[in-house]
Amino acid sequence: MTNPTAAMLVIGDEILSGRTRDSNMHHLAQELTRIGITLREARVVADVHDEIVTAVRALSGRYTHVFTSGGIGPTHDDITADAIAAALRAKIGHRADAMALLQAHYDRAGLPFNEARQRMARIPEGATLIDNPVSTAPGFTLGNVHVMAGVPNIFQAMVASVLPKLTGGPPLLSQSLRVNRGEGEIAGPFGELAAEYPDLSMGSYPFLQNGAHGTNLVIRGTDPAMVDAAMVRLTRLFG
Amino acid sequence: MTNPTAAMLVIGDEILSGRTRDSNMHHLAQELTRIGITLREARVVADVHDEIVTAVRALSGRYTHVFTSGGIGPTHDDITADAIAAALRAKIGHRADAMALLQAHYDRAGLPFNEARQRMARIPEGATLIDNPVSTAPGFTLGNVHVMAGVPNIFQAMVASVLPKLTGGPPLLSQSLRVNRGEGEIAGPFGELAAEYPDLSMGSYPFLQNGAHGTNLVIRGTDPAMVDAAMVRLTRLFG
Repeated sequence: MTNPTAAMLVIGDEILSGRTRDSNMHHLAQELTRIGITLREARVVADVHDEIVTAVRALSGRYTHVFTSGGIGPTHDDITADAIAAALRAKIGHRADAMALLQAHYDRAGLPFNEARQRMARIPEGATLIDNPVSTAPGFTLGNVHVMAGVPNIFQAMVASVLPKLTGGPPLLSQSLRVNRGEGEIAGPFGELAAEYPDLSMGSYPFLQNGAHGTNLVIRGTDPAMVDAAMVRLTRLFG
Repeated sequence: MTNPTAAMLVIGDEILSGRTRDSNMHHLAQELTRIGITLREARVVADVHDEIVTAVRALSGRYTHVFTSGGIGPTHDDITADAIAAALRAKIGHRADAMALLQAHYDRAGLPFNEARQRMARIPEGATLIDNPVSTAPGFTLGNVHVMAGVPNIFQAMVASVLPKLTGGPPLLSQSLRVNRGEGEIAGPFGELAAEYPDLSMGSYPFLQNGAHGTNLVIRGTDPAMVDAAMVRLTRLFG
C-alpha cells in the first residue's frame, strides 16, 4: 500500500452519548477513497482536553493526514483548537486574519462580534485557515492535522476546500458482484481467489432479503486491469 | 464520573472505504446511555490482525467493557475471533458447544456444515457464548471484551443478549431546550451556567432552519434533581 494514509478524529460528547449520529466519517471516507488517500483508522473521543491531545498525537505521528470534526464553535465546550495547539506544541491566540474575517461577517449580519464569537478566531500560530463558505468561522490546518467543524454541511464544505490541496495516490477502485448464496457457501473458493491476488482486497457482505441469504462480494484495488481480471474470475465462479 | 465505562471497536474495511455507513456505534451508544454505562471512546480499524490486536489491548486495559462489531463470519476476511484471542493471550479452536449449535442449525436448514461455516465455531478458550437468535453463529465474551457481528440486526440482537448481564450505574439523563438564537449569542451565559454545575455536562448544538440560526442546548447528568434545577435556570435564561 503506497497511497498516503489518513485517520479521522471525531470530537464530541453528543456522538458518544447517542444523541447525534455521526455522518462526517462516512462522508470523509468516501471522499478520501475517491482521491486515493487510504483512511486507515477513525476514533471518536469526548470533549475532554487530554483525550483530544492524546488521540491527535497518536494519529498525527502515524498517518500522513489527520482530519478532525467538531468543537470549533463559540461555546465553552468548544475546546478543539486549544487541544490541537497543545498536542502539536503551538501557541494559540486570537489571530488577526481570522478576527478580520469574522468581524466583517458579523458587521454584515448586524450582529455584535462579542467575546464568544471572538473565540472562533483562536487559531494556533503557524496554521493555515480552512475556508468556511457556510458560516465564515474558519477551520485550520496545523502540520498534518486538518481541523474542521462538526455540523455536517460545514464539515462537507471544509472537506471540499481542503482535499484539492492534498496529493493523493491512484484512487481505490471497487467492483462488486451480488450473489444469491449465503457467505458460508461461497467462502471457500472466494478465499482461494483472494489468496491469489494479495494486492487486492476482497470482502464479502452478507444480507438477508425476503428470507433468503445473499452476499455482496467486493473487490478493491488501485490497478484497474488487476481489478478487472479478478472480477472476471469471480464472475466465472459465482456469476 | 463513577459509572462503568466502555469503548467500542468497529472492525471492517468496508466502513473505512466508505462502502458501508456504520450504524452499530450509534445503536450501542444509545443502549449504553440507557443503562448507565458511559461510552468514552470508539474506534474503527481495518480487517488487519495487528491493528485489531493493538486496539483491543489498549481499550480493554482502559475501560470497564469493550464491545466489538464485525469480522466473525465464515470468510477469509473474518479474522476477529483469532485477533481477540491473540490480544488477550487465549488459545482458540473449534469449540464443541459452538460446533453443536451450528451443526444443528445447518442440519435443520438442510445445508452442509462445511469448513467455512465451521470457522464460525472458532471461539477462544474461556469465553462465554453470546446468543445469536437471528442466524445462530454466536458472538462471545472473553474477559471484558464482548465480540459481536457487524450485520446490524444481528449486532442489535447480540447487544440485547449481553447488556442485561452487565452492571450499569444510574442512567445518564438528558434534557434539552431549543432556542431560536445562534450559539454566539447564548455562549457567554450558557458557559457561566455550565461552570456552576461541574457535575453536569452541558452542550450546545447549532442548527440552521429556513435560513435562521438556532441552537439546541442539552444538559446531561445522572442526578435527576440536579438536571431539573439546571434546566429551570436554563429556561429562565433563554426560554
